[in-house]
Amino acid sequence: MEKIVSLAKRRGFIFQSSEIYGGLNSCWDYGPLGVELKNNVKRAWWRRMVQERDDMVGQDASILMHPRVWEASGHLEGFTDPLVDCKQCRQRFRADHVTGKTCPECGGELTEPRNFNLMFKTFMGPVEDQAAVVYLRPETAQGIFVNFNNILTTTRKRLPFGVAQIGKSFRNEITPGNFTFRTREFEQMEIEYFVKPGTDEEHFHKWVETRYKWYKELGISPERLRLRPHAQDELAHYAKACVDIEYYFPMGWSELEGIANRTDYDLKRHAEYSGNKLEYFDQELNEHYVPYVIEPSAGADRATLAFLLDAYHEEPDKDEIRVVLRFHPELAPVKVAVLPLSRKEPLTDMAKEISQELRRHWNTEYDDAKSIGRRYRRQDEIGTPFCVTVDFQSPEDQTVTVRDRDTMEQTRLSVAELVPYLREKLDNR
Amino acid sequence: MEKIVSLAKRRGFIFQSSEIYGGLNSCWDYGPLGVELKNNVKRAWWRRMVQERDDMVGQDASILMHPRVWEASGHLEGFTDPLVDCKQCRQRFRADHVTGKTCPECGGELTEPRNFNLMFKTFMGPVEDQAAVVYLRPETAQGIFVNFNNILTTTRKRLPFGVAQIGKSFRNEITPGNFTFRTREFEQMEIEYFVKPGTDEEHFHKWVETRYKWYKELGISPERLRLRPHAQDELAHYAKACVDIEYYFPMGWSELEGIANRTDYDLKRHAEYSGNKLEYFDQELNEHYVPYVIEPSAGADRATLAFLLDAYHEEPDKDEIRVVLRFHPELAPVKVAVLPLSRKEPLTDMAKEISQELRRHWNTEYDDAKSIGRRYRRQDEIGTPFCVTVDFQSPEDQTVTVRDRDTMEQTRLSVAELVPYLREKLDNR
Repeated sequence: MEKIVSLAKRRGFIFQSSEIYGGLNSCWDYGPLGVELKNNVKRAWWRRMVQERDDMVGQDASILMHPRVWEASGHLEGFTDPLVDCKQCRQRFRADHVTGKTCPECGGELTEPRNFNLMFKTFMGPVEDQAAVVYLRPETAQGIFVNFNNILTTTRKRLPFGVAQIGKSFRNEITPGNFTFRTREFEQMEIEYFVKPGTDEEHFHKWVETRYKWYKELGISPERLRLRPHAQDELAHYAKACVDIEYYFPMGWSELEGIANRTDYDLKRHAEYSGNKLEYFDQELNEHYVPYVIEPSAGADRATLAFLLDAYHEEPDKDEIRVVLRFHPELAPVKVAVLPLSRKEPLTDMAKEISQELRRHWNTEYDDAKSIGRRYRRQDEIGTPFCVTVDFQSPEDQTVTVRDRDTMEQTRLSVAELVPYLREKLDNR
Repeated sequence: MEKIVSLAKRRGFIFQSSEIYGGLNSCWDYGPLGVELKNNVKRAWWRRMVQERDDMVGQDASILMHPRVWEASGHLEGFTDPLVDCKQCRQRFRADHVTGKTCPECGGELTEPRNFNLMFKTFMGPVEDQAAVVYLRPETAQGIFVNFNNILTTTRKRLPFGVAQIGKSFRNEITPGNFTFRTREFEQMEIEYFVKPGTDEEHFHKWVETRYKWYKELGISPERLRLRPHAQDELAHYAKACVDIEYYFPMGWSELEGIANRTDYDLKRHAEYSGNKLEYFDQELNEHYVPYVIEPSAGADRATLAFLLDAYHEEPDKDEIRVVLRFHPELAPVKVAVLPLSRKEPLTDMAKEISQELRRHWNTEYDDAKSIGRRYRRQDEIGTPFCVTVDFQSPEDQTVTVRDRDTMEQTRLSVAELVPYLREKLDNR
């Protein structure tokens, strides 16, 4: 992990938040390459989960929601961690992290465990009183349930259909950590897939398969990916079944995504608390019922971290070590680099013109600093799939070489062929 | 505006947040079409402002930042509205919205104005004390300033260069309103463009032009777009100049975006408060200096609303009125609809196959419900640029008709020509 944290900072993937002020615990900023990588992860999710499917639509609910939402969802009452206080040094700890009955810091006496709600709260409007309390959502899912009727009416979808959403959520974790793996502010990619009761198990298994395939297709090594079904006593009270997709992170197997069969719990709770029916009218059966829901809930930051870790390779290269990020082309933050062999005319003019043209299609870097070998290394280290080299022959016959990151093979082709060649390699799925 | 609010709800662009609980004041959710429209707006901004420019990079900072950031930026002290309380009915008002010296609601006596900070505050970690207070950022800009050194080091950019960011910000406005125009939770698209002092005025004017052109190119009518330079007494204390790009909203001319010359104020303040130098080393001059910054700051929600309002057209159509959203193809939430003329084989099979193929490239709708005329109307109303109709001739000779939203002309072409034809119309810029 240290190697990735260091590379992430050195090359501009991920910085500590507010670093010049000493950082803010567990908050991270995505730098120039990180934001492109993470956006590509989110787009690859949206493309396959929404755009390419006839049974899915998207939405984007606000982070601040009506506080009754969290009463109905059970978060206000149950989304808590048990904490103990040290009566002597006044520090706080998660009760399940304290082994003895004394303070791990000073040995003082501890209070009885008290439940601490993990939702961040704030006040809306000018007056800080109980009536003004709102919460930062701890999950995006509830934004979908409360919009169920609106989406049904406006899209005229028939079961089974799903609603997808990408957005920030906030949890006041007592012990965040492992770089961007567990943070208090994080981004989710969630689907609520509504199905006819009775067909829920079949759809649950389909979604486990679909989501596992997504990670694999985008380049995660299958040997670092596994499914872990939850035991009965691990299940949330509303869930009929849950499977985690886990990745073998440096700290061990950890959750990338959970796929849960939430039954009709959420829609029924919101119906009860809001007084609005949240039902589906089945034209074939000529009856109303509350759909079951399958929820594949993924973390955008965790997925990004896994793609970054999995892409990392070190290879011997003469006396040195070649670091390569073998990103899937769809995820690579920079798709192509244009490298003139010298800083002289007419090479630079030609190289700049080519990079301007390529930028219209893909995120492109132009680099003319230091030796060509070092520049290839720099691009390998950020996972750029293709380098276009403009050499002394180029202005004469309008050809360039394209170097492949993975095979390191160089192909000479005419400038006119460049965009179609790269399109075939980069955009073809 | 009422027509747009109604269309937005009816067709799934924008819903009231937590509507089944009576809504949350000034918070809105983007529905299935709204999220696509807004994502397209954000992508069109990123593509032109970051991807296509050699002098720009992106980043994505966290919403929660170190509280010292807001001391340095001046928000903690100065980001306030003066409020008055009614001593009788206890309601609160913005002092500048009260004309007399008595309560506009009950006529009671008002207190002296007191400053109320517009930042949302919350507590990080388990203890709610002053040390744990953090704020939801009121602007994304500061996340760029505090990362200045990190970005300079990792990208090796030379002046002038800029950093772009899209993300949520929060302001506890006393009087939000006008649909999604002024909301407490909103999304910004901000650029901080760093330049050599002395060249700032030139770059300021270039950015005003660049940003004005962006709105125009994406379809905003020039007669509803204007530039409004700020008068000297309107300028923020750190700003040397500011120009608003205004749109003629239903409530009158209102700000879409502000372009400000922020001078070296922010970098200097953060250097002072953090004790870290935030400077640029100019190799040509062989000296260090603090760059000036030009800030084009746009609202993603406002831009989306303006594109929606501007696209709205009503036209007489026989005895009825045809509603068309004339979105720029790049912004249209659905790019193409596939409409089989009947629900019988082999038309539906062929139509479904075509829509599956088109989905790989663009957001596509399949619609087989009701008359073809009504289906064209439905697509016009959501701004779909092209409808592909599969008719009885289609299975026989593998041709379809493509109907253009704006000209309403129909072109017959072979299925094999469909993707290249639409690519030329939709993706070509």
